[in-house]
Amino acid sequence: MQTAYGAGAPLPVAFAAGDEGAWTIRSMEIRRGDPLAPAIRLDVTEGDGARGAARGSWTLRGVTSNMRYTTRGEATSMTSKQAGLGRPQAHFAALIPIRKSPAWWAMPQDERRAIYEERSRHTSIGMEYLPAIARRLHHSRDLGEPFDFLTWFEYAPEDEPQFEHLLARLRAREEWEYVDREIDIRLARAGPI
Amino acid sequence: MQTAYGAGAPLPVAFAAGDEGAWTIRSMEIRRGDPLAPAIRLDVTEGDGARGAARGSWTLRGVTSNMRYTTRGEATSMTSKQAGLGRPQAHFAALIPIRKSPAWWAMPQDERRAIYEERSRHTSIGMEYLPAIARRLHHSRDLGEPFDFLTWFEYAPEDEPQFEHLLARLRAREEWEYVDREIDIRLARAGPI
Repeated sequence: MQTAYGAGAPLPVAFAAGDEGAWTIRSMEIRRGDPLAPAIRLDVTEGDGARGAARGSWTLRGVTSNMRYTTRGEATSMTSKQAGLGRPQAHFAALIPIRKSPAWWAMPQDERRAIYEERSRHTSIGMEYLPAIARRLHHSRDLGEPFDFLTWFEYAPEDEPQFEHLLARLRAREEWEYVDREIDIRLARAGPI
Repeated sequence: MQTAYGAGAPLPVAFAAGDEGAWTIRSMEIRRGDPLAPAIRLDVTEGDGARGAARGSWTLRGVTSNMRYTTRGEATSMTSKQAGLGRPQAHFAALIPIRKSPAWWAMPQDERRAIYEERSRHTSIGMEYLPAIARRLHHSRDLGEPFDFLTWFEYAPEDEPQFEHLLARLRAREEWEYVDREIDIRLARAGPI
């Protein structure tokens, strides 16, 4: 079946680790739960090809989707500040796969929203780092994947301290008590060979 | 990769139409958008097998997932009233695949919730028909499927007028203005051959 990936349609994305790919893996930190196998490169595929067979050492898949917690006010603020992926100065990237606990997923929408934003300020904190830290969220849980979310960040190398600060703040909040697996993968655009 | 389908974990489900299956198709009404090919039987597969290859005339796939709009209060009311699938007296079923418009999906969470419940009373109306009409929702949009949702209903034949009433009320509300494809498939448990 052909799928059109127009504005707003879910975009499938595959992150395949191995010996090839446009991104060099600088580090991989197992923060919680089971590890992923080490690899030296990461290849990112978008669109129909992203639903295909696994390649390389491991392949993680997700889909960009509709907003799950964001209000109109938050969306308007974010849109006015955020930058897209692929900026020429954004030589660094991070891929942070996380899984949340069964207790998180058993909660109804209002309780998850309250922890996510009213108590943990996830969106508000992230917005403080715009436009320096560009971000794209991929949903994986409904695909039967080992992680629930794959968040991809892009930034200039000189903004990495800001990125560390952003992560430290999010990880210190109540929301992160529900994260039961997390791996922090840092990347750099691979130069010409 | 092995996936455990424990309590609360997303359960993949495939609905395959063709010449075989535990359900006889009584009728198929194209309410909005493109049709599906006619078929005489429907086979329902749950778990890992549901992610496999398409079979028969057409196969629609979805995943049971976490609640997207339901509040704690609503969830508690529903849990106290609703019945499970597979009741012996529930000889009739309905499969209603729907797709919502790009305008729906572009809205942030608070605006979709307001239309879904505060203005269209989707959950409240559905609860009036519990436990007679059992229901299970499957999410399909992030899987790259042609529909966004597959809702499966089970009820006793004598409750079909109630079911018609439920559908008429939901379809008359603002939420349904965002439905751009809908097919209403009615089924009966196939007897011994």
